[in-house]
Amino acid sequence: MGFDADELATLVDGRWAHVRDRVREELAGIDLPPGDHLDTEDHRALTLEQLHQLAKSGIPALGFPPAYGGSGDTGGSVVSLEMLPGNLSLMVKAGVQWGLFGGAVVALGTERHHERYLRDIMNLELPGCFAMTETGHGSDVQHLRTTATYDPESQEFVVHTPHEAARKEYIGNAARDGRMAVVFAQLITRGESHGVHALVVPIRDESGNTLPGVTITDCGRKAGLNGVDNGRITFDHVRVPREALLNRYGDVAPDGTYSSPIASKGKRFFTMLGTLIRGRVSVAGTAGSATKLALEIALRYGDARRQFGRPGTDEEVVVLDYLVHQRKLLPALAKTFALHFAQEQLVSSLHDVPPGDERAQRELESRAAGLKAVATWHATSTIQTCREACGGAGYLAENQLAQLKADTDVFTTFEGDNTVLLQLVAKGLLTGYKDQFDDLGTLGMAKFLADQFVGSVIEKTATRSLVQRIIDGSGKDDVLDRGWQLTMFDDRERHVLDGLGRRLRKANRDNAFEVFNQAQDHVLRAARVHVDRQVLEAFVAAVERCRDRETAQLLGKLCDLYVLSTIEEDRGWFLEHERITPRRSKAITEAVNELCRQIRPHAVDLVAAFRMPRQWLTAPIATGAEAARQEAQRAHDRAHG
Amino acid sequence: MGFDADELATLVDGRWAHVRDRVREELAGIDLPPGDHLDTEDHRALTLEQLHQLAKSGIPALGFPPAYGGSGDTGGSVVSLEMLPGNLSLMVKAGVQWGLFGGAVVALGTERHHERYLRDIMNLELPGCFAMTETGHGSDVQHLRTTATYDPESQEFVVHTPHEAARKEYIGNAARDGRMAVVFAQLITRGESHGVHALVVPIRDESGNTLPGVTITDCGRKAGLNGVDNGRITFDHVRVPREALLNRYGDVAPDGTYSSPIASKGKRFFTMLGTLIRGRVSVAGTAGSATKLALEIALRYGDARRQFGRPGTDEEVVVLDYLVHQRKLLPALAKTFALHFAQEQLVSSLHDVPPGDERAQRELESRAAGLKAVATWHATSTIQTCREACGGAGYLAENQLAQLKADTDVFTTFEGDNTVLLQLVAKGLLTGYKDQFDDLGTLGMAKFLADQFVGSVIEKTATRSLVQRIIDGSGKDDVLDRGWQLTMFDDRERHVLDGLGRRLRKANRDNAFEVFNQAQDHVLRAARVHVDRQVLEAFVAAVERCRDRETAQLLGKLCDLYVLSTIEEDRGWFLEHERITPRRSKAITEAVNELCRQIRPHAVDLVAAFRMPRQWLTAPIATGAEAARQEAQRAHDRAHG
Repeated sequence: MGFDADELATLVDGRWAHVRDRVREELAGIDLPPGDHLDTEDHRALTLEQLHQLAKSGIPALGFPPAYGGSGDTGGSVVSLEMLPGNLSLMVKAGVQWGLFGGAVVALGTERHHERYLRDIMNLELPGCFAMTETGHGSDVQHLRTTATYDPESQEFVVHTPHEAARKEYIGNAARDGRMAVVFAQLITRGESHGVHALVVPIRDESGNTLPGVTITDCGRKAGLNGVDNGRITFDHVRVPREALLNRYGDVAPDGTYSSPIASKGKRFFTMLGTLIRGRVSVAGTAGSATKLALEIALRYGDARRQFGRPGTDEEVVVLDYLVHQRKLLPALAKTFALHFAQEQLVSSLHDVPPGDERAQRELESRAAGLKAVATWHATSTIQTCREACGGAGYLAENQLAQLKADTDVFTTFEGDNTVLLQLVAKGLLTGYKDQFDDLGTLGMAKFLADQFVGSVIEKTATRSLVQRIIDGSGKDDVLDRGWQLTMFDDRERHVLDGLGRRLRKANRDNAFEVFNQAQDHVLRAARVHVDRQVLEAFVAAVERCRDRETAQLLGKLCDLYVLSTIEEDRGWFLEHERITPRRSKAITEAVNELCRQIRPHAVDLVAAFRMPRQWLTAPIATGAEAARQEAQRAHDRAHG
Repeated sequence: MGFDADELATLVDGRWAHVRDRVREELAGIDLPPGDHLDTEDHRALTLEQLHQLAKSGIPALGFPPAYGGSGDTGGSVVSLEMLPGNLSLMVKAGVQWGLFGGAVVALGTERHHERYLRDIMNLELPGCFAMTETGHGSDVQHLRTTATYDPESQEFVVHTPHEAARKEYIGNAARDGRMAVVFAQLITRGESHGVHALVVPIRDESGNTLPGVTITDCGRKAGLNGVDNGRITFDHVRVPREALLNRYGDVAPDGTYSSPIASKGKRFFTMLGTLIRGRVSVAGTAGSATKLALEIALRYGDARRQFGRPGTDEEVVVLDYLVHQRKLLPALAKTFALHFAQEQLVSSLHDVPPGDERAQRELESRAAGLKAVATWHATSTIQTCREACGGAGYLAENQLAQLKADTDVFTTFEGDNTVLLQLVAKGLLTGYKDQFDDLGTLGMAKFLADQFVGSVIEKTATRSLVQRIIDGSGKDDVLDRGWQLTMFDDRERHVLDGLGRRLRKANRDNAFEVFNQAQDHVLRAARVHVDRQVLEAFVAAVERCRDRETAQLLGKLCDLYVLSTIEEDRGWFLEHERITPRRSKAITEAVNELCRQIRPHAVDLVAAFRMPRQWLTAPIATGAEAARQEAQRAHDRAHG
C-alpha cells in the first residue's frame, strides 16, 4: 500500500491551506524559540518580544475587520493560531491579546470602541486582558460578583470588587503587560441589575504603573505556560466613563436608562457569550496541533529505537513493531486525524454561520463546546502516553514532551471546564437547540428539560446526507463496513439520549436537583457519544473527498481504527445494550490489533502529513540522533562479534 | 455512620506505625520545603543541603546493617522514604543515595566494601550514583554494552563505554554531586564474558573535579524532579583495582579466574537484580503517598468550593456534592486505600523473605513489579484527575498538584518501565515462578512458556486462606457480597491466564516472536487482573483486621467501591465472557453511584486518616482559604440581598 503523501497533505490542509502555507513561510523566517528554560521574568519578557514579532508578521490581523486593516478572515485567524504548538506560551498570549481581548472589543463593542482601540490592539500598542473569571466563579460566569454601577451624576460606571471571591482570577496579560482590561461585571443602573456586561477598564498607565483603585497580584508559577503573566485584579470603586461600556447588546443612556436589543436577561447574556466562542475553537485546534507534535516525536523515536533481541536473529526489535507500542500510539493517531477533520468542519461553521440564524449559532456553540472538551482530553491523554512511550527520554525537557504536557494541561479546564461544556452539549440536544436561556447551572435545568425533550433528532448537514447515503447503501453486517460503523454510532447516540430524556422527565419542582444529579453521568455520556458521532462523520466525509485511491484506502483504514478502537473502549455499553455480541466484541479487539499492524509501516509518514512548521520539531530523539546511535551500535556489534 | 478516626489511622499506619510516627516527629522539627521555584542549580544545592539534614536525622540509617550503625530494618527504611511526597526531589535523591547506591553496595558487595564505604554512604560523606541504565538499554539491562575487562598484569578492571548508545544515562547524583558510581558492566576476563556485574568506580575527586577518563554531561531540565542532578557518564578505559568488583555473586581471582556461587549466567544476573527490588518497592510506596496528598488537596477544595445555584435555595452547590465530581475522586480514593494495604503486604514480604527461598523471592519480585506498575499508573491518572477537578486553581504551582504531577510522572517508566514489568509478572504466572532465567526479552519467552504452563495456580498465602473462607462461606449472588466479589476477581484471573497459556502453546522455534507479539495485549491483561486480585485480597484482609464495627463498615463500603468501580471499568471483559449479564452490569454502575453518595460525607476524614506530615500540605485551596472566601461571599450576599 503506497500512498500519495502530497494528496494526503493537501487534504489535511483543507480549506485554509493558504493560511497554513503562509504561516509556515512566515515561521521559516522568524525564530520563535520557547523560553521555558528561562526564569519567569525572562520568559515573560521573551514571550512579549515574540508577540511583537508576531504582530509585525501581520498574521494576527487575519481575524480583524478590514475597515481597520484586518482581513476579516475568522477561520483563517483560528487556523493561524493553531500553528504555534512548539511555543504555547506565545500561542496563549497571542490568544489572550487578539482572540479574547481584541475579539471581545470587536464582538461586544461598537464603532466608537473599534475606531479608538482596534489598531492599537492589532499592533500591540495596547496590550490587554480579558477579565471574566473570578476566584469564586469560573464555570458559572452568569453569577460573577464584580459590579459596574452607573452614576448618572458623573456619567461614569463604578467598577468594584465586593469581596475576595469576586476578584478577577488567572487573567492572562494581567501580572505584567496589560494596560487595559475588558471587565465582565453585573451592570447596575437606577438600582436595578441587568446582568453581566463588559466594559473596557484601563489598569496601567503608559509607564506600566497600576492605576489608582486597581490592585494586581501575580498568580505566580504555573504547571506550564509560564511565559504568560497571569494575575488577579481587584477593583476598588474604579470610575470609567459611560462610553467604556461595550454597548452592542446593552447600553445605558446618560440619565441612567438601560436599553438592549434583547429583552431577556438570560438570552442577552448567552448571546454575548456566544460571540466569544472563537477562543474555545482555538483551544480545540491548538490541542490538536500539540497532539500532532507529540505523536510525531513519539512515532519517530519508536520507529528508530530498538529494545530486546529478536529470537533467531542478532537484531534487536524496533520498539514500534511491538503490538503494545502500536496500541499506545496508533489508535491515538487515528483519533487525531478524526478530530482534525472535525475541527476543520467546526472552523468552517464558525466562519460561515449566518448572522441572525439563532439555531445555527446554538448548534455551532454546542459543536464548539463538545469538540473542545473531547479534543483537549485527547491531547492530555495522548501527550501523556507519548511521554511514557519514550521512557526516560520522554521525561527530559530537550525532548519537548514534558513541556507539551505541562502547557496543554490547563486546556481541559480553561475556556470552559470540559465537564461543564459537555453538560451544555447535552442541554442543547435535549432542548433541540431551542433558545432556552435558563440558568446555565446544569442544575436548574432538569425541570424544564423534562418538558422540552421530544426524542433525539440528528441534525441535518451536508455531511449527514452523505452519511445517510452510506448507511442506506449498506447491508453488510461487518465491523469493517462503513455503513455498519455509522449505524453503531447513530444508534448509540439515539438510545443514550432517549434514555436520558426519560430519566429527566421524572423531575418536578421539588426534586429537580436530585434527579439531575443522579443522572449526571448519563448526561455526560450523552454528550460524549454525540460528539463521537459528529467526529466520525467528519472523518468519513474527508475519506470521501480523497481522490487518490491508495491514499483513500489508507485513510479508510485509519478511520476503521478510529471507529473500532472507540467501540472497543466503550464495548461495555455496546454489550450491555446488546448492540454487539460477545463474539463480535472479541472480533473488534482482533480487528484493532490487525489494523495497528497494517498501519504501522505508514505511521511516521501519516503524522508527517500534518506538516508542522519544522522549527517546532527540536527533540533530539525525533531528529535522527537515536537512529544514528542505533546504527553506530550495530556497526560496533558487527565488528566485535 | 460515624466512624472511629483513630482506629482507622492506626489500621492504616500498620506494621511500621512506629516508623511513620518517628518520621512525622522528625519532620515536625526539620523544615524541608521543596525548591521547585528555584533555578536548577539553586534547586540542586538546596536539595543536597536537605539531604544532609535528612542524613543527620538518622532516618536513612534504618535500612543499613546494624554492624555499621544502621537498624537493619528493611521495611522501615521503605516506609520512611514514602513520607516525603511534598518534596519528591529530596525523596528521589535520598532514594538514589541510600536505596540504590547504598543498597547495591550492601547487597552486591562483601565485607571489604561494607567496611570501607557504608559509614560514609550513610552520613553522606560519599555521595554516589547507581549507574545501570544506558542510552541504548533501559529495559533490557541484561544487554548493557559497557564493559569491565580484567587486566591480570595490573590486577585492574578497565571500565569502558564502547559507543554513544552505551553511555550511562539519566543517572541521579551524576551531574553535580556524585563522587562514586556503582557501574553495571559486562564482566570480561580471559577473553570470556560472564554477564553483567557491578563495580564501584570513583568519578570525581574530593574537590568535585571529574576524574581522568570519565566524562559527565548534564541531562538538563526535566519535567520534574529538578532538584536531582541527572547526568550521563562515559568511561574511556577507566582503570579500577580488582577489589572494586562488588563480588558477592561473582569474583575474579588475581590471575583472572572467574568464580561464582551461581553457575548459570542468567540466574546469576537475575539474582543480582533481585537484591535491588527495594527501589522498586519504594517507588510504589511513594507513588501512593503522592496520590494521597493530591487527593487530600482535591477533596478539601471540593468540600469547600461551591459553584452554580441549587434550585429553590439561595445557596450554591458544594462541588463535591455533584455526582460527577464524586465519580472523579471517590473511586480513586477507594483504590488508593486498596493499594495502600497491598503495599503494606508487599513491604512485609520484602522484610520477611527467607534468605535462600527462591520461590518466595520470585513471588516477591513479581508482586513488587506488578504493584509498582499499577500504583504508579494510578498515581499518574489520579493526580491528573485531581488537577482537573481543581480547575484553574489546580494549575497554579502554589496548589502543589502541578509539581506532584510533574515529579511523579517518571515513576511509570523508571525503576522498570511499567509495560515491561507487567510482562515480567505474566512470565512468573506462566512459569509458576520456576527459576527459569532466560532472556528477559518478553520475546524469547514464548517458546519456553509454551512448555512450562500447566494452568493458573493462585498462590497460597495467609490472606488467601481468609479469602477462601469468605468465598466458601458465601452463597449470595449479590454485587455487594464479598464472596461474590472475590469470586469474580479469581475467576477472571484464571480465565485470562488459561486462555493466554493456550495461545502461547502454539509457539515454535520459527514463530515465537510473532505468536508472543500478537498476544502481547493479552499478556498485559493477565498481569493486570492478577495484580487486581492481589490488591483486593489485601484490602479484604485489612477490613477483617478492623475491630471497630462502624469503621469496618465504612472501610467495607470503600472496598465495595474499589471492587465495583474496577469491574465497571472492565465490564467489557465481564460481559464478553458472560460473567455478568447486561442487567447486572447496569446495576453495578448504579451501585457505584450509590456508594459514592454514601461515602461522600466521609471523604475528607478518610483521606486525612493517612496523616501525611503537615508540612507537606501547603496548598492554599486545601488549607481553609477557599472556605473563608466562600463564607465571606455568603455573608456579603446575605447583607446585600
